[in-house]
Amino acid sequence: MNEYPSILLENAVNQFASLPGVGRKTALRHVLYLLRSPEQDVERFAEALTKLRKEVRYCRRCHNITDQDVCPICQSPRRDQKTICVVENVQDVMSIENTGQYNGLYHVLGGIISPMDSIGPKDIEIDSLLARLEPEQIREVILALPTTMEGDTTNFYIYRRIQNTDGFADRIQRGEFKISQIARGVAVGNELEYTDEITLGRSIVNRIEFTA
Amino acid sequence: MNEYPSILLENAVNQFASLPGVGRKTALRHVLYLLRSPEQDVERFAEALTKLRKEVRYCRRCHNITDQDVCPICQSPRRDQKTICVVENVQDVMSIENTGQYNGLYHVLGGIISPMDSIGPKDIEIDSLLARLEPEQIREVILALPTTMEGDTTNFYIYRRIQNTDGFADRIQRGEFKISQIARGVAVGNELEYTDEITLGRSIVNRIEFTA
Repeated sequence: MNEYPSILLENAVNQFASLPGVGRKTALRHVLYLLRSPEQDVERFAEALTKLRKEVRYCRRCHNITDQDVCPICQSPRRDQKTICVVENVQDVMSIENTGQYNGLYHVLGGIISPMDSIGPKDIEIDSLLARLEPEQIREVILALPTTMEGDTTNFYIYRRIQNTDGFADRIQRGEFKISQIARGVAVGNELEYTDEITLGRSIVNRIEFTA
Repeated sequence: MNEYPSILLENAVNQFASLPGVGRKTALRHVLYLLRSPEQDVERFAEALTKLRKEVRYCRRCHNITDQDVCPICQSPRRDQKTICVVENVQDVMSIENTGQYNGLYHVLGGIISPMDSIGPKDIEIDSLLARLEPEQIREVILALPTTMEGDTTNFYIYRRIQNTDGFADRIQRGEFKISQIARGVAVGNELEYTDEITLGRSIVNRIEFTA
């Protein structure tokens, strides 16, 4: 006998198990749960997947996920239209939105430069970022990429590209344009004792004035 | 702004998050993975779910999952047709099959008696089990239910029902019919020191002759 008593069951298990981080036991549990669910619930599940893949679009300006041509953040008149926060992916937009601390626009790169994975500057949305700066009259670009070698490389690459764009070096010097990066330091709630040395070192170098 | 940048995304996340043990972060990761997958892969996923729920059937005899009217185990001429192993659910059939130690038939109850969850004997496949014994000329019923209070209750209930069925008490006495239950004891590879007292106690009471 086969491991699974039914081909249909096996197919469904294979589908769930193809998701990253889902093993065959978990996949089987999901499938048996769906088998016990009402038929229309399972149909709704299947439909949500099909619709998702067919109809979800990416914002023409910032490349965030959206149902429209331009996403609600880019369209909102209440958002600061002069600041762009550059992030790696869509989850990062959600994470920053959840903090409630940022009110500008975004630019989703869709990846970061990583020679190991053969991802170069042309494979991610860097050209489209540069294309936005002048016409949208951006005043600040915030680099919010991962604190990894790849993130740092991408940060540096974007910085150089902006510097080398006509007029931007001057504008930066005159303080009319700013490139910043998110603060790195000891996470809130963490003990110094358990913070790695590089992070702790940076948090001292980049110390800020104390305000009570 | 909403937590999710797109209704379609949110719908798909909700569907995954409705599976037991899947949180919203994991659900989002699954959805974003599918968004990056080829469209036909996602369609195949959706189709597998729809087909699963619509076409999977339960074996008319043993209630195991199958694509046919009667499952391959029940139909197989190479299996011992005189022994039925009673299990709680479909996973248990797979687990026992994977041991390679059993060659008889199965009977899937689809649950166990549990007054707390208001599951009574009529809610699970006990009547259909009793209906199989005489016409199929069964010689042994192996009770392979969970080692819990509910499992023990169900074991006892089935035992009494068979005893009270015409002629079965006599046949049991004459050794023509047997009701057994799976052995409980110290798991293979476990230290006695870390085995709970009830299990260890049972393993002494139910000791078997040593064979080298």
